[in-house]
Amino acid sequence: MFLVRGVCKVVGEHDRRALAELAQFIRFPTVSSQPKHAGDIRRCAAWLAEHLVGIGLRNVRVFQTSRHPIVYADWLLAARRPTVLVYGHYDVQPVDPLNEWNSPPFDPVVRGGNIYGRGACDDKGQMFAHVKAMESYLRTRRALPLNVKCLFEGEEEIGSPNLGPFIKRNAHALAADVAVMSDTRMLGPDRPAITYALRGGLSIELEVRGPKIDLHSGNFGGAVHNPLQALCEMIGKLHDGDRRISIPGFWNRVRRWPPEERAYMAKAGPADEKILSDARVRSRWGERGFSLYECTTIRPSLSVSGIVGGYQGPGVKAVIPSRAAAKLNFRLVPDQRPDEIERLVRKHLAGIAPSTTDFAVRTFLKANPALIDRTNPAMNAAESAYERGFGASPVFLRSGGTIPVVNIFKEVLGIPTVLMGFALPDDRIHAPNEKFHLPNFYRGIATCIAFLDEMGKMKNSFAGSKAGQEREVAAVL
Amino acid sequence: MFLVRGVCKVVGEHDRRALAELAQFIRFPTVSSQPKHAGDIRRCAAWLAEHLVGIGLRNVRVFQTSRHPIVYADWLLAARRPTVLVYGHYDVQPVDPLNEWNSPPFDPVVRGGNIYGRGACDDKGQMFAHVKAMESYLRTRRALPLNVKCLFEGEEEIGSPNLGPFIKRNAHALAADVAVMSDTRMLGPDRPAITYALRGGLSIELEVRGPKIDLHSGNFGGAVHNPLQALCEMIGKLHDGDRRISIPGFWNRVRRWPPEERAYMAKAGPADEKILSDARVRSRWGERGFSLYECTTIRPSLSVSGIVGGYQGPGVKAVIPSRAAAKLNFRLVPDQRPDEIERLVRKHLAGIAPSTTDFAVRTFLKANPALIDRTNPAMNAAESAYERGFGASPVFLRSGGTIPVVNIFKEVLGIPTVLMGFALPDDRIHAPNEKFHLPNFYRGIATCIAFLDEMGKMKNSFAGSKAGQEREVAAVL
Repeated sequence: MFLVRGVCKVVGEHDRRALAELAQFIRFPTVSSQPKHAGDIRRCAAWLAEHLVGIGLRNVRVFQTSRHPIVYADWLLAARRPTVLVYGHYDVQPVDPLNEWNSPPFDPVVRGGNIYGRGACDDKGQMFAHVKAMESYLRTRRALPLNVKCLFEGEEEIGSPNLGPFIKRNAHALAADVAVMSDTRMLGPDRPAITYALRGGLSIELEVRGPKIDLHSGNFGGAVHNPLQALCEMIGKLHDGDRRISIPGFWNRVRRWPPEERAYMAKAGPADEKILSDARVRSRWGERGFSLYECTTIRPSLSVSGIVGGYQGPGVKAVIPSRAAAKLNFRLVPDQRPDEIERLVRKHLAGIAPSTTDFAVRTFLKANPALIDRTNPAMNAAESAYERGFGASPVFLRSGGTIPVVNIFKEVLGIPTVLMGFALPDDRIHAPNEKFHLPNFYRGIATCIAFLDEMGKMKNSFAGSKAGQEREVAAVL
Repeated sequence: MFLVRGVCKVVGEHDRRALAELAQFIRFPTVSSQPKHAGDIRRCAAWLAEHLVGIGLRNVRVFQTSRHPIVYADWLLAARRPTVLVYGHYDVQPVDPLNEWNSPPFDPVVRGGNIYGRGACDDKGQMFAHVKAMESYLRTRRALPLNVKCLFEGEEEIGSPNLGPFIKRNAHALAADVAVMSDTRMLGPDRPAITYALRGGLSIELEVRGPKIDLHSGNFGGAVHNPLQALCEMIGKLHDGDRRISIPGFWNRVRRWPPEERAYMAKAGPADEKILSDARVRSRWGERGFSLYECTTIRPSLSVSGIVGGYQGPGVKAVIPSRAAAKLNFRLVPDQRPDEIERLVRKHLAGIAPSTTDFAVRTFLKANPALIDRTNPAMNAAESAYERGFGASPVFLRSGGTIPVVNIFKEVLGIPTVLMGFALPDDRIHAPNEKFHLPNFYRGIATCIAFLDEMGKMKNSFAGSKAGQEREVAAVL
């Protein structure tokens, strides 16, 4: 298969080396939420920067932030061609429960056509497909067919706190015609997909505090309100009998989609059975009156993602814990506003908190939902690229996930983002035994090559764009 | 103060050595619920046995069980005197949360007249007071004023699974007139108390299982019933608006006490304010219509003593956990029956478990409530002993805790137990920074000496008892 004359062949020859390099990339335990890994993240950023220099990108720089660094690189020598901003993240989710991994999360292994490791898919493997595509071009043609700016961050899994301010400060230098990233899912190995909608997010921690110290449950059981019990009772009041979030005002701005859009979704999206088998779960749950695909994309959700309180070990400990805390993860949809939802949630929690305990709410993340116009010419380029890389036309999908940077690109840089994902539904992102399907890695590289080619041909669509005129500015970032 | 001619003085001289030995005893991390400490428990049992040989007790033996050993010793040379069975436990509760300890839990330190360490009070310090009392007698008089059998177990904190069968197998050899133990509380440093009632217990673990693997809360949130949410919703249904356990049938056998008993309790027991200040908690909770002392003694309770599920670390992890589990600790009162309550609880949980998740219930402990006749002559001996040891008459108290062996002594050996406690309400048993008030340790030793003396004088009360005739039998245990 010739994707781009002379380029595809080189990818084929270099598959083994690309895989070895990806394994090296995964080996850095870049868990952004855990302070103990700050040094690993710094080392990974330095490794990545060195790698980008090695493949021929220019102006490679590592920008320190108040937490984890941003890696920048560009190649801006394609006069009168469009500029693509390639985004990815090299940080990963925590690994626990560690004992459920079949192999150490940061010691990647290849089994059955997959590479296993934390970050293999989300997002090291997927972002690396773009890096290897650029390398293929630069090694064989000594040039890219368009201008590229790369922006690789180390804070995506903690809500990108420093990326937005960085982009705002450097909006001029980061000007581009379109952004592209691969951090989303396909429907199956031969069923590529382009994501055109993302849910927003609000992550909070709810802490309930009772006695100053843990108490003996025999001596005090029955006299003191147990913070774990109070926490459970509060969480038990966050959904109603119809499985809907029961926070007053929460639903006011949830958009009702016209029948045509829901019909399109029913045609393009996964069936309930597919979602349940992907989730490896026996029974459907979800709001009544909506398909599971709708429940996870155009309807908001609330997940309790962790509870800490009391004795966690084997056997029993007869204790009333002094405190308990839950991590609550809301997913928001158009036209909900995270700030407003945060206020409503805090107000509701204050209303249902018992007077016999104290409570506190801490906000970790807030992100707007995102929508991308399916008719953008860059979307057509991505469609063609998938056809050439996978031999199949992609469907347009909504995702239930949250990628805050998509809104930042839109609001600050005024550009759309092409979400060209290579993940499979069973890649176990965020879970033990995360993997990346190796055929998707190789086909992903081919697709990214084709995307650069397709976009490079589109000079007319982006003629006279601001990005083109400012392609030399990155050095003053 | 002369408690018993020539004995008290020796105690005074040996205070420092007794404290050093107690510290050595606490240093063994004898956490019976955690398999990794099995070796520590074995070593502690061996140390204790050697110590008992050293002070002059006879027939000292360490009995292996299927889990943790029982240490036995006796002194049976007081012809025609009563026999006292001295019980204690050398195992301790888990130490977590470890980071809340001001000093390492198994590296005891003395600060402000207290010795700090896990087990300092519950029960190593309290049981050691009896050991030191016997030592004082044996060192000064070369004899005890009565016959003694010691039974020190290593499984109290896990519900004494092997002690009952051991006592049943050796009922003949363990025959005694009365049992005594110190594992209960006083009202304050100068307010000794004898406990005459204990609550029973039922400890279970409720596990809810959902998806086979942890899921991404963005991709699947809204489509899958979250096991942590389901668990919270179930726990939220275990109490009603009146703070009463809302399990059908649970209250059927709860005894209604006559007004005289409640009046006695109101006079002898702690006021609500005292219980709240002991608990270091701001607000009272508890069933309406009962004092907090009643809520914790003659009314049953349910404490959620721990929840495990999802992400426990700092920050966020966007996950729907595949499973969640809660430890539930019921305290039962006369005339509730643990087996029946277990059946009712399991039935109720099955009834409220959602069909969209799976669940399992595991039972860890079951124990009957206990009542001891306040008019027993051994109770009078304990009263006099406190007057001599503490210079104050004890009150008779109910405890909310559970000591299963009290019922075993009653049912298998046919003897009452004198619960002669030396713990203070703020000793933080089962919590971080557990301590033992050193004046209570020394006065406790004096009180135990006086108890042996008082009991020794009571030969008439127990004349011709079976225990006396069988005092040589222990060797065939």
